[in-house]
Amino acid sequence: MTTFRIDLAYDGGGFRGYARNAGVRTVQAVVESALATVLGAAVDTEVAGRTDAGVHARCQVVSFGWEGTIDLVRLARSLDGLVGPEIVVRSAREAPPGFSARFSATGRTYRYFIDDGPSPDPLRRDWVWHIAEELDLAAMSEAAGAFVGEQDFASLCRAAGDRPTVRLVRSAEWRREDGLLVFVVAASSFCHQMVRSMVALCVDVGRGRVAPSSVPGILAARDRSAARGVAPPHGLVLWEVDY
Amino acid sequence: MTTFRIDLAYDGGGFRGYARNAGVRTVQAVVESALATVLGAAVDTEVAGRTDAGVHARCQVVSFGWEGTIDLVRLARSLDGLVGPEIVVRSAREAPPGFSARFSATGRTYRYFIDDGPSPDPLRRDWVWHIAEELDLAAMSEAAGAFVGEQDFASLCRAAGDRPTVRLVRSAEWRREDGLLVFVVAASSFCHQMVRSMVALCVDVGRGRVAPSSVPGILAARDRSAARGVAPPHGLVLWEVDY
Repeated sequence: MTTFRIDLAYDGGGFRGYARNAGVRTVQAVVESALATVLGAAVDTEVAGRTDAGVHARCQVVSFGWEGTIDLVRLARSLDGLVGPEIVVRSAREAPPGFSARFSATGRTYRYFIDDGPSPDPLRRDWVWHIAEELDLAAMSEAAGAFVGEQDFASLCRAAGDRPTVRLVRSAEWRREDGLLVFVVAASSFCHQMVRSMVALCVDVGRGRVAPSSVPGILAARDRSAARGVAPPHGLVLWEVDY
Repeated sequence: MTTFRIDLAYDGGGFRGYARNAGVRTVQAVVESALATVLGAAVDTEVAGRTDAGVHARCQVVSFGWEGTIDLVRLARSLDGLVGPEIVVRSAREAPPGFSARFSATGRTYRYFIDDGPSPDPLRRDWVWHIAEELDLAAMSEAAGAFVGEQDFASLCRAAGDRPTVRLVRSAEWRREDGLLVFVVAASSFCHQMVRSMVALCVDVGRGRVAPSSVPGILAARDRSAARGVAPPHGLVLWEVDY
Protein backbone atom coordinates (compact mmCIF):
# COMPACT_ATOMS: atom_id res chain seq x y z
CA MET A 1 0.00 0.00 0.00
CA THR A 2 1.47 3.37 -1.05
CA THR A 3 0.39 6.66 0.52
CA PHE A 4 -0.44 9.59 -1.75
CA ARG A 5 -0.76 13.26 -0.88
CA ILE A 6 -2.99 15.80 -2.60
CA ASP A 7 -2.77 19.54 -1.92
CA LEU A 8 -5.98 21.50 -2.41
CA ALA A 9 -7.22 25.08 -2.29
CA TYR A 10 -10.92 25.91 -2.09
CA ASP A 11 -13.54 28.60 -1.84
CA GLY A 12 -15.58 27.21 1.07
CA GLY A 13 -18.60 29.43 0.39
CA GLY A 14 -20.59 26.73 -1.37
CA PHE A 15 -19.80 23.87 1.04
CA ARG A 16 -21.17 22.74 4.39
CA GLY A 17 -17.61 22.39 5.62
CA TYR A 18 -14.84 19.95 4.81
CA ALA A 19 -15.96 16.77 6.55
CA ARG A 20 -18.38 14.31 4.98
CA ASN A 21 -21.88 14.77 6.38
CA ALA A 22 -24.89 12.88 5.06
CA GLY A 23 -27.22 14.85 2.81
CA VAL A 24 -25.14 18.01 2.43
CA ARG A 25 -22.43 19.14 0.01
CA THR A 26 -19.00 19.01 1.63
CA VAL A 27 -15.47 19.32 0.26
CA GLN A 28 -14.60 15.79 1.35
CA ALA A 29 -17.63 14.30 -0.39
CA VAL A 30 -16.80 16.09 -3.66
CA VAL A 31 -13.10 15.16 -3.50
CA GLU A 32 -13.67 11.50 -2.55
CA SER A 33 -16.31 11.09 -5.22
CA ALA A 34 -13.94 12.56 -7.84
CA LEU A 35 -11.12 10.30 -6.58
CA ALA A 36 -13.39 7.27 -6.92
CA THR A 37 -14.23 8.32 -10.48
CA VAL A 38 -10.59 8.72 -11.48
CA LEU A 39 -9.19 5.68 -9.63
CA GLY A 40 -12.12 3.37 -10.30
CA ALA A 41 -12.57 2.46 -6.62
CA ALA A 42 -13.55 4.22 -3.42
CA VAL A 43 -10.80 5.47 -1.11
CA ASP A 44 -10.81 6.74 2.46
CA THR A 45 -8.94 10.00 2.90
CA GLU A 46 -7.40 11.81 5.83
CA VAL A 47 -7.20 15.56 6.03
CA ALA A 48 -4.98 18.14 7.75
CA GLY A 49 -7.76 20.53 8.84
CA ARG A 50 -11.49 19.83 9.11
CA THR A 51 -12.63 23.32 8.16
CA ASP A 52 -16.13 24.47 9.15
CA ALA A 53 -18.96 25.43 6.80
CA GLY A 54 -17.99 28.52 4.81
CA VAL A 55 -14.29 28.42 5.77
CA HIS A 56 -11.77 28.49 2.90
CA ALA A 57 -8.40 26.88 2.27
CA ARG A 58 -5.37 28.17 0.43
CA CYS A 59 -3.53 25.00 1.32
CA GLN A 60 -5.34 21.90 2.54
CA VAL A 61 -3.66 18.50 2.55
CA VAL A 62 -5.39 15.16 1.95
CA SER A 63 -3.81 11.70 2.02
CA PHE A 64 -4.96 8.20 1.10
CA GLY A 65 -3.51 4.72 0.67
CA TRP A 66 -3.63 2.87 -2.66
CA GLU A 67 -2.39 -0.53 -3.83
CA GLY A 68 -0.30 -0.06 -6.96
CA THR A 69 0.91 2.87 -9.01
CA ILE A 70 -0.89 6.05 -10.01
CA ASP A 71 -0.13 8.38 -12.92
CA LEU A 72 0.13 11.51 -10.79
CA VAL A 73 0.02 14.04 -13.63
CA ARG A 74 -3.15 12.49 -14.97
CA LEU A 75 -4.64 12.18 -11.47
CA ALA A 76 -4.06 15.86 -10.68
CA ARG A 77 -5.46 17.02 -14.01
CA SER A 78 -8.55 14.77 -13.98
CA LEU A 79 -9.34 15.50 -10.36
CA ASP A 80 -8.95 19.26 -10.91
CA GLY A 81 -11.36 19.08 -13.85
CA LEU A 82 -13.94 17.23 -11.74
CA VAL A 83 -13.83 19.36 -8.57
CA GLY A 84 -13.24 22.88 -10.06
CA PRO A 85 -13.56 25.77 -10.12
CA GLU A 86 -14.39 26.11 -6.39
CA ILE A 87 -11.80 23.48 -5.48
CA VAL A 88 -8.36 23.59 -7.09
CA VAL A 89 -5.93 20.65 -7.07
CA ARG A 90 -2.52 22.23 -6.51
CA SER A 91 -0.52 19.01 -6.65
CA ALA A 92 -0.61 15.23 -6.30
CA ARG A 93 2.44 13.27 -5.19
CA GLU A 94 3.64 10.13 -3.49
CA ALA A 95 4.11 10.62 0.28
CA PRO A 96 6.72 8.98 2.54
CA PRO A 97 5.69 5.61 4.03
CA GLY A 98 3.39 6.08 7.01
CA PHE A 99 2.45 9.64 6.05
CA SER A 100 -0.92 10.87 7.32
CA ALA A 101 -2.25 14.29 6.28
CA ARG A 102 -3.76 14.54 9.75
CA PHE A 103 -1.35 12.87 12.16
CA SER A 104 1.94 13.78 10.47
CA ALA A 105 1.07 17.49 10.50
CA THR A 106 3.18 19.37 13.06
CA GLY A 107 1.43 22.71 12.66
CA ARG A 108 -1.40 24.60 10.99
CA THR A 109 -1.54 28.29 10.11
CA TYR A 110 -4.81 30.15 9.58
CA ARG A 111 -5.41 33.69 8.38
CA TYR A 112 -8.51 35.78 9.02
CA PHE A 113 -9.27 38.83 6.87
CA ILE A 114 -11.14 41.94 8.03
CA ASP A 115 -11.86 45.18 6.17
CA ASP A 116 -12.59 48.00 8.62
CA GLY A 117 -12.98 50.69 5.95
CA PRO A 118 -16.28 52.55 5.43
CA SER A 119 -17.51 50.41 2.48
CA PRO A 120 -16.94 46.75 1.62
CA ASP A 121 -15.03 45.80 -1.52
CA PRO A 122 -17.51 43.81 -3.65
CA LEU A 123 -14.68 41.80 -5.23
CA ARG A 124 -13.43 40.54 -1.86
CA ARG A 125 -16.78 40.14 -0.12
CA ASP A 126 -16.59 36.33 -0.19
CA TRP A 127 -13.50 36.06 2.04
CA VAL A 128 -13.32 39.32 3.97
CA TRP A 129 -15.41 40.26 7.02
CA HIS A 130 -16.45 43.89 6.60
CA ILE A 131 -16.85 45.93 9.79
CA ALA A 132 -17.69 49.57 9.08
CA GLU A 133 -15.80 50.86 12.11
CA GLU A 134 -12.09 51.48 12.39
CA LEU A 135 -10.46 48.93 14.68
CA ASP A 136 -7.53 49.57 17.03
CA LEU A 137 -4.68 47.47 15.64
CA ALA A 138 -2.37 48.05 18.63
CA ALA A 139 -4.99 46.86 21.13
CA MET A 140 -5.80 43.82 18.97
CA SER A 141 -2.11 42.94 18.73
CA GLU A 142 -1.83 43.11 22.50
CA ALA A 143 -4.84 40.80 22.86
CA ALA A 144 -3.40 38.34 20.33
CA GLY A 145 -0.13 38.21 22.26
CA ALA A 146 -1.99 36.58 25.16
CA PHE A 147 -2.87 33.59 22.96
CA VAL A 148 0.76 32.53 22.48
CA GLY A 149 2.06 29.54 24.43
CA GLU A 150 0.75 26.18 25.59
CA GLN A 151 -2.57 26.85 27.30
CA ASP A 152 -6.02 25.46 27.87
CA PHE A 153 -8.25 27.16 25.29
CA ALA A 154 -11.56 25.89 26.69
CA SER A 155 -12.86 29.49 26.76
CA LEU A 156 -12.33 29.73 23.01
CA CYS A 157 -13.45 26.26 21.92
CA ARG A 158 -16.83 24.87 21.14
CA ALA A 159 -17.59 22.28 23.80
CA ALA A 160 -16.25 18.90 22.75
CA GLY A 161 -17.21 16.63 25.61
CA ASP A 162 -14.10 15.33 27.30
CA ARG A 163 -11.71 16.09 24.46
CA PRO A 164 -8.62 18.04 25.53
CA THR A 165 -8.59 21.77 24.84
CA VAL A 166 -4.91 22.38 25.57
CA ARG A 167 -3.07 23.65 22.47
CA LEU A 168 0.35 25.10 21.69
CA VAL A 169 -0.06 28.42 19.87
CA ARG A 170 3.30 29.28 18.29
CA SER A 171 2.44 32.77 17.04
CA ALA A 172 -0.60 35.04 16.80
CA GLU A 173 -0.48 38.52 15.33
CA TRP A 174 -2.50 41.19 13.55
CA ARG A 175 -1.11 43.09 10.54
CA ARG A 176 -2.38 45.73 8.14
CA GLU A 177 -1.74 44.38 4.65
CA ASP A 178 -3.09 45.51 1.28
CA GLY A 179 -5.80 47.60 2.97
CA LEU A 180 -6.97 44.74 5.20
CA LEU A 181 -6.52 43.73 8.82
CA VAL A 182 -5.05 40.22 8.78
CA PHE A 183 -4.86 37.83 11.74
CA VAL A 184 -2.11 35.23 11.31
CA VAL A 185 -2.13 32.40 13.85
CA ALA A 186 -0.02 29.24 13.95
CA ALA A 187 -0.48 26.32 16.34
CA SER A 188 0.19 22.62 16.69
CA SER A 189 -3.51 22.18 16.01
CA PHE A 190 -6.73 24.02 16.82
CA CYS A 191 -9.86 22.95 18.61
CA HIS A 192 -13.30 23.58 17.13
CA GLN A 193 -14.10 27.26 16.38
CA MET A 194 -10.91 28.35 18.15
CA VAL A 195 -9.64 30.80 15.51
CA ARG A 196 -13.05 32.40 14.99
CA SER A 197 -13.43 32.77 18.77
CA MET A 198 -10.00 34.44 18.94
CA VAL A 199 -11.01 36.83 16.15
CA ALA A 200 -14.35 37.74 17.78
CA LEU A 201 -12.54 38.50 21.02
CA CYS A 202 -9.87 40.59 19.28
CA VAL A 203 -12.52 42.53 17.34
CA ASP A 204 -14.29 43.43 20.57
CA VAL A 205 -10.91 44.60 21.86
CA GLY A 206 -10.37 46.59 18.64
CA ARG A 207 -13.77 48.23 19.13
CA GLY A 208 -12.88 49.23 22.68
CA ARG A 209 -15.53 46.96 24.24
CA VAL A 210 -13.02 44.66 25.95
CA ALA A 211 -9.68 45.75 27.44
CA PRO A 212 -6.71 43.83 26.00
CA SER A 213 -5.49 43.29 29.54
CA SER A 214 -8.58 41.20 30.31
CA VAL A 215 -7.74 38.53 27.70
CA PRO A 216 -5.49 36.41 29.97
CA GLY A 217 -8.34 36.29 32.53
CA ILE A 218 -10.82 35.17 29.87
CA LEU A 219 -8.47 32.32 28.93
CA ALA A 220 -7.84 31.40 32.57
CA ALA A 221 -11.61 31.13 33.17
CA ARG A 222 -11.71 28.02 30.91
CA ASP A 223 -15.33 28.87 30.34
CA ARG A 224 -16.78 29.52 26.93
CA SER A 225 -19.30 32.00 28.30
CA ALA A 226 -16.37 34.25 29.32
CA ALA A 227 -15.56 34.81 25.62
CA ARG A 228 -17.28 36.85 22.88
CA GLY A 229 -18.87 34.45 20.41
CA VAL A 230 -17.40 33.61 17.02
CA ALA A 231 -16.49 35.67 13.96
CA PRO A 232 -18.26 34.71 10.71
CA PRO A 233 -16.69 31.79 8.83
CA HIS A 234 -16.19 33.50 5.45
CA GLY A 235 -13.18 35.57 6.63
CA LEU A 236 -11.19 32.47 7.64
CA VAL A 237 -8.64 30.66 5.44
CA LEU A 238 -6.56 27.57 6.28
CA TRP A 239 -3.31 29.04 5.01
CA GLU A 240 -0.58 26.47 5.51
CA VAL A 241 0.12 23.03 7.00
CA ASP A 242 3.57 22.02 8.21
CA TYR A 243 4.98 18.48 8.25
CA MET B 1 -31.46 71.86 -10.72
CA THR B 2 -28.70 70.53 -8.43
CA THR B 3 -26.16 67.94 -9.57
CA PHE B 4 -25.44 64.95 -7.35
CA ARG B 5 -22.55 62.51 -7.47
CA ILE B 6 -22.59 58.87 -6.43
CA ASP B 7 -19.45 56.75 -6.14
CA LEU B 8 -19.91 53.03 -6.70
CA ALA B 9 -17.88 49.82 -6.60
CA TYR B 10 -19.12 46.64 -8.21
CA ASP B 11 -18.39 43.04 -9.03
CA GLY B 12 -19.19 43.04 -12.75
CA GLY B 13 -19.43 39.26 -13.04
CA GLY B 14 -23.22 39.17 -12.94
CA PHE B 15 -23.87 42.12 -15.28
CA ARG B 16 -23.92 42.55 -19.06
CA GLY B 17 -21.79 45.65 -18.65
CA TYR B 18 -22.47 49.07 -17.23
CA ALA B 19 -24.62 50.70 -19.91
CA ARG B 20 -28.38 50.19 -20.12
CA ASN B 21 -29.24 47.62 -22.78
CA ALA B 22 -32.78 46.37 -23.36
CA GLY B 23 -33.54 42.91 -22.03
CA VAL B 24 -30.31 42.32 -20.09
CA ARG B 25 -29.13 43.04 -16.55
CA THR B 26 -26.73 45.98 -16.48
CA VAL B 27 -25.26 48.06 -13.66
CA GLN B 28 -26.92 51.23 -14.98
CA ALA B 29 -30.35 49.60 -15.11
CA VAL B 30 -30.04 48.36 -11.51
CA VAL B 31 -28.72 51.71 -10.22
CA GLU B 32 -31.28 53.87 -12.07
CA SER B 33 -34.11 51.62 -10.99
CA ALA B 34 -32.98 51.87 -7.35
CA LEU B 35 -32.60 55.65 -7.67
CA ALA B 36 -36.15 55.89 -9.03
CA THR B 37 -37.40 53.85 -6.07
CA VAL B 38 -35.64 56.02 -3.50
CA LEU B 39 -36.33 59.42 -5.15
CA GLY B 40 -39.83 58.63 -6.34
CA ALA B 41 -39.12 59.66 -9.94
CA ALA B 42 -36.93 58.48 -12.81
CA VAL B 43 -33.57 60.18 -13.34
CA ASP B 44 -31.07 60.10 -16.19
CA THR B 45 -27.52 59.44 -15.06
CA GLU B 46 -24.12 60.03 -16.57
CA VAL B 47 -21.16 57.77 -15.85
CA ALA B 48 -17.38 58.09 -15.82
CA GLY B 49 -16.60 54.75 -17.50
CA ARG B 50 -18.93 52.52 -19.52
CA THR B 51 -17.38 49.22 -18.46
CA ASP B 52 -17.94 46.14 -20.63
CA ALA B 53 -19.74 42.95 -19.64
CA GLY B 54 -17.85 41.22 -16.82
CA VAL B 55 -15.57 44.19 -16.03
CA HIS B 56 -15.47 45.39 -12.40
CA ALA B 57 -15.16 48.77 -10.71
CA ARG B 58 -13.45 49.75 -7.49
CA CYS B 59 -14.42 53.35 -8.11
CA GLN B 60 -17.09 54.27 -10.64
CA VAL B 61 -18.71 57.72 -10.64
CA VAL B 62 -22.31 58.49 -11.58
CA SER B 63 -24.00 61.92 -11.69
CA PHE B 64 -27.56 63.17 -12.12
CA GLY B 65 -29.55 66.38 -11.84
CA TRP B 66 -32.43 66.76 -9.37
CA GLU B 67 -34.78 69.63 -8.52
CA GLY B 68 -34.71 70.19 -4.78
CA THR B 69 -32.84 68.74 -1.86
CA ILE B 70 -31.89 65.16 -1.09
CA ASP B 71 -31.08 63.57 2.28
CA LEU B 72 -27.72 62.19 1.19
CA VAL B 73 -27.16 59.88 4.16
CA ARG B 74 -30.55 58.28 3.60
CA LEU B 75 -30.02 58.13 -0.17
CA ALA B 76 -26.66 56.35 0.17
CA ARG B 77 -28.02 53.87 2.71
CA SER B 78 -31.27 53.07 0.85
CA LEU B 79 -29.54 52.78 -2.50
CA ASP B 80 -26.85 50.53 -1.04
CA GLY B 81 -29.51 48.25 0.40
CA LEU B 82 -31.27 48.00 -2.97
CA VAL B 83 -28.27 47.37 -5.22
CA GLY B 84 -26.04 45.22 -2.95
CA PRO B 85 -24.12 43.09 -2.41
CA GLU B 86 -22.67 43.03 -5.95
CA ILE B 87 -22.84 46.84 -6.16
CA VAL B 88 -21.67 48.95 -3.20
CA VAL B 89 -22.55 52.63 -2.76
CA ARG B 90 -19.37 54.22 -1.44
CA SER B 91 -20.73 57.75 -1.11
CA ALA B 92 -23.41 60.21 -2.26
CA ARG B 93 -22.76 63.96 -2.29
CA GLU B 94 -23.69 67.22 -3.94
CA ALA B 95 -21.43 68.04 -6.89
CA PRO B 96 -20.28 71.49 -8.08
CA PRO B 97 -22.64 73.22 -10.55
CA GLY B 98 -22.17 71.88 -14.07
CA PHE B 99 -20.49 68.67 -12.88
CA SER B 100 -20.77 65.68 -15.20
CA ALA B 101 -19.41 62.28 -14.16
CA ARG B 102 -18.52 61.74 -17.80
CA PHE B 103 -17.40 65.10 -19.21
CA SER B 104 -15.78 66.57 -16.08
CA ALA B 105 -13.49 63.53 -15.71
CA THR B 106 -9.90 64.38 -16.61
CA GLY B 107 -8.53 60.87 -16.33
CA ARG B 108 -9.34 57.22 -15.71
CA THR B 109 -7.11 54.53 -14.23
CA TYR B 110 -7.68 50.82 -14.82
CA ARG B 111 -5.93 47.82 -13.28
CA TYR B 112 -5.73 44.35 -14.77
CA PHE B 113 -4.85 41.35 -12.58
CA ILE B 114 -3.03 38.22 -13.76
CA ASP B 115 -1.85 35.18 -11.79
CA ASP B 116 0.90 33.34 -13.64
CA GLY B 117 1.51 30.76 -10.91
CA PRO B 118 0.92 27.03 -11.51
CA SER B 119 -2.58 26.89 -9.92
CA PRO B 120 -5.34 29.51 -9.70
CA ASP B 121 -6.44 30.87 -6.32
CA PRO B 122 -10.12 29.88 -5.98
CA LEU B 123 -10.81 32.93 -3.77
CA ARG B 124 -9.61 35.36 -6.43
CA ARG B 125 -10.88 33.54 -9.51
CA ASP B 126 -13.60 36.14 -10.20
CA TRP B 127 -11.19 39.03 -10.82
CA VAL B 128 -7.86 37.46 -11.74
CA TRP B 129 -6.92 35.97 -15.11
CA HIS B 130 -4.99 32.77 -14.43
CA ILE B 131 -2.31 31.82 -16.98
CA ALA B 132 -0.40 28.69 -15.95
CA GLU B 133 2.88 29.89 -17.52
CA GLU B 134 5.37 32.26 -15.99
CA LEU B 135 5.37 35.60 -17.82
CA ASP B 136 8.40 37.82 -18.44
CA LEU B 137 7.75 40.98 -16.42
CA ALA B 138 10.68 42.91 -17.87
CA ALA B 139 9.54 42.31 -21.46
CA MET B 140 5.93 43.22 -20.58
CA SER B 141 7.11 46.44 -18.92
CA GLU B 142 9.05 47.35 -22.06
CA ALA B 143 5.94 46.71 -24.18
CA ALA B 144 3.78 48.83 -21.85
CA GLY B 145 6.25 51.70 -22.13
CA ALA B 146 5.35 52.02 -25.81
CA PHE B 147 1.73 52.83 -24.90
CA VAL B 148 2.63 56.07 -23.11
CA GLY B 149 1.97 59.40 -24.86
CA GLU B 150 -0.66 60.84 -27.18
CA GLN B 151 -1.13 58.35 -29.99
CA ASP B 152 -3.68 56.84 -32.32
CA PHE B 153 -4.74 53.56 -30.68
CA ALA B 154 -6.77 52.25 -33.66
CA SER B 155 -4.78 48.98 -33.51
CA LEU B 156 -5.99 48.44 -29.93
CA CYS B 157 -9.59 49.65 -30.21
CA ARG B 158 -12.70 47.90 -31.34
CA ALA B 159 -13.82 49.59 -34.56
CA ALA B 160 -16.04 52.54 -33.74
CA GLY B 161 -16.94 53.93 -37.16
CA ASP B 162 -15.53 57.40 -37.55
CA ARG B 163 -14.99 58.05 -33.86
CA PRO B 164 -11.50 59.28 -33.02
CA THR B 165 -9.06 56.73 -31.59
CA VAL B 166 -6.37 59.17 -30.45
CA ARG B 167 -5.85 59.04 -26.68
CA LEU B 168 -3.36 60.43 -24.19
CA VAL B 169 -1.94 57.60 -22.07
CA ARG B 170 -0.25 59.15 -19.03
CA SER B 171 1.30 56.00 -17.59
CA ALA B 172 1.27 52.26 -18.23
CA GLU B 173 3.21 49.77 -16.16
CA TRP B 174 3.35 46.20 -14.95
CA ARG B 175 4.13 45.34 -11.29
CA ARG B 176 4.37 42.19 -9.20
CA GLU B 177 2.17 42.80 -6.17
CA ASP B 178 0.80 40.35 -3.60
CA GLY B 179 1.68 37.38 -5.81
CA LEU B 180 -0.07 38.83 -8.87
CA LEU B 181 1.04 40.60 -12.05
CA VAL B 182 -0.78 43.93 -12.11
CA PHE B 183 -1.13 46.25 -15.11
CA VAL B 184 -1.80 49.87 -14.08
CA VAL B 185 -2.75 52.23 -16.89
CA ALA B 186 -3.92 55.86 -16.71
CA ALA B 187 -5.25 57.90 -19.63
CA SER B 188 -7.47 60.87 -20.42
CA SER B 189 -10.01 58.29 -21.55
CA PHE B 190 -9.98 54.91 -23.28
CA CYS B 191 -11.63 53.70 -26.45
CA HIS B 192 -13.59 50.46 -26.55
CA GLN B 193 -11.64 47.33 -25.46
CA MET B 194 -8.40 49.33 -25.37
CA VAL B 195 -7.12 48.11 -21.98
CA ARG B 196 -7.96 44.47 -22.69
CA SER B 197 -6.20 44.75 -26.09
CA MET B 198 -3.14 46.24 -24.37
CA VAL B 199 -3.14 43.34 -21.88
CA ALA B 200 -3.49 40.66 -24.58
CA LEU B 201 -0.56 42.17 -26.46
CA CYS B 202 1.59 42.40 -23.32
CA VAL B 203 0.77 38.80 -22.38
CA ASP B 204 1.93 37.60 -25.79
CA VAL B 205 5.11 39.59 -25.18
CA GLY B 206 5.44 38.02 -21.71
CA ARG B 207 5.08 34.56 -23.29
CA GLY B 208 7.83 35.32 -25.79
CA ARG B 209 5.49 35.18 -28.79
CA VAL B 210 5.86 38.87 -29.67
CA ALA B 211 9.06 40.94 -29.27
CA PRO B 212 8.55 44.03 -27.10
CA SER B 213 10.39 46.03 -29.77
CA SER B 214 7.57 45.28 -32.24
CA VAL B 215 4.90 47.07 -30.16
CA PRO B 216 5.53 50.58 -31.60
CA GLY B 217 5.10 49.15 -35.11
CA ILE B 218 1.80 47.47 -34.11
CA LEU B 219 0.53 50.84 -32.86
CA ALA B 220 1.80 52.66 -35.97
CA ALA B 221 -0.10 50.22 -38.21
CA ARG B 222 -3.41 51.68 -36.94
CA ASP B 223 -4.94 48.34 -37.85
CA ARG B 224 -6.71 46.13 -35.38
CA SER B 225 -5.62 42.98 -37.16
CA ALA B 226 -2.01 43.89 -36.28
CA ALA B 227 -2.79 43.35 -32.56
CA ARG B 228 -3.40 40.17 -30.50
CA GLY B 229 -7.08 40.05 -29.56
CA VAL B 230 -8.44 40.95 -26.13
CA ALA B 231 -7.80 39.64 -22.62
CA PRO B 232 -10.86 38.25 -20.76
CA PRO B 233 -13.01 40.90 -19.05
CA HIS B 234 -12.98 39.45 -15.52
CA GLY B 235 -9.37 40.56 -14.79
CA LEU B 236 -10.17 44.24 -15.44
CA VAL B 237 -11.13 46.80 -12.78
CA LEU B 238 -11.95 50.51 -13.25
CA TRP B 239 -9.74 51.67 -10.41
CA GLU B 240 -9.97 55.45 -10.17
CA VAL B 241 -11.47 58.51 -11.89
CA ASP B 242 -9.87 61.94 -11.66
CA TYR B 243 -11.71 65.28 -11.80
